[in-house]
Amino acid sequence: MRLAELSRRSGVSTATIKYYLREGLLPPGRQINTTTAEYDDEHLRRLRLVRAMIQVGRLPVATVREVLRNVDDESLGRAIRLGAALWALPQVPEPDEEDEYVQSAHREADKLLETLGWSNARLLTTISPAYRSLVVAVAAFRRLGYDWGAELLVEYGKLMHEVAKLDVDFVETHPSEAEKMETAVLGAVLTEPMLQALRRLAQEEESGRRYGFE
Amino acid sequence: MRLAELSRRSGVSTATIKYYLREGLLPPGRQINTTTAEYDDEHLRRLRLVRAMIQVGRLPVATVREVLRNVDDESLGRAIRLGAALWALPQVPEPDEEDEYVQSAHREADKLLETLGWSNARLLTTISPAYRSLVVAVAAFRRLGYDWGAELLVEYGKLMHEVAKLDVDFVETHPSEAEKMETAVLGAVLTEPMLQALRRLAQEEESGRRYGFE
Repeated sequence: MRLAELSRRSGVSTATIKYYLREGLLPPGRQINTTTAEYDDEHLRRLRLVRAMIQVGRLPVATVREVLRNVDDESLGRAIRLGAALWALPQVPEPDEEDEYVQSAHREADKLLETLGWSNARLLTTISPAYRSLVVAVAAFRRLGYDWGAELLVEYGKLMHEVAKLDVDFVETHPSEAEKMETAVLGAVLTEPMLQALRRLAQEEESGRRYGFE
Repeated sequence: MRLAELSRRSGVSTATIKYYLREGLLPPGRQINTTTAEYDDEHLRRLRLVRAMIQVGRLPVATVREVLRNVDDESLGRAIRLGAALWALPQVPEPDEEDEYVQSAHREADKLLETLGWSNARLLTTISPAYRSLVVAVAAFRRLGYDWGAELLVEYGKLMHEVAKLDVDFVETHPSEAEKMETAVLGAVLTEPMLQALRRLAQEEESGRRYGFE
């Protein structure tokens, strides 16, 4: 398809598509002659991904480029490639390793992964931003003197594992490796606000069941 | 306890405590004489909550004041009071009701709540920010042409209901009504980043189990 059709089918203006092409967020089309290029379904899919990251996820262009570089890196195995694409997404600030709450949060997070039997995740603790996010969150609880029990974290962890199985199952329904990667990134950008909304709605439901709305 | 001890036990500087007092985020202490006031455990708890909202949740002072006003409103029933406190937290932008994707997202969200049997949450759809957040998230999927199936949303909803039961169970372990309200707000501010971290770690675990890290 030509640029005009790509624009029509994606709902993205031709000016924006040209901007993405210049910024290297979209691979160039197949040049037919000096003024015309031909685009295909791969461009359409990539455009959808870029739009999701920029318009919904509000990610800066440099971050989008970094995520895509990992999505496209065929030298990596699937699990690492998936992780690398997600790890390029914005993360919480780094934990301050000198802080005593951060140090005990590390011990608590390690214990949690052990209790949950997440032996693969444990292999990644030195490099995974998700692990560092968990440490930051646990340290914040403890610094506030919040007595959230270790058992409760285990229960949340088990439920999040069920969520992750649905996530990975959905990624697997896509045939090509490229689509799997793109779906994983789209899922991370789009489903986090959705799960948060569902959790709050479920809290309203559960409060209403237990206490009624009077 | 005096101001100095409140500062020591809370880890919040006396200057910051005085600022919170002036801004009405902390109720005044019991005046012993013209220069000295006495504070109690209720002040300590309230200080922890204010700090969590400002330092961890990065909420503006006006929002914190609004949340606290609802936390303290004893004229409301428990479910509504809980909801009102959480509803004052920052929410996603309002859905554009003229947009065709938003209109069909409303139908999809209503169908989802019906399928899940969340009849209490359905009573609140005209006023609940969580419902509007869900509509915005579903509309974003659809606008991108993302074929996330309705069945998958139902599965996520069921798991989030299990999460919400843990949330409400934990709130109920606190004896007084005031502590229940404070815990619900702290939970919303502190546990969302934690659940997100756990979900990403669980995705790494699940990818590692299915594909290995090579």
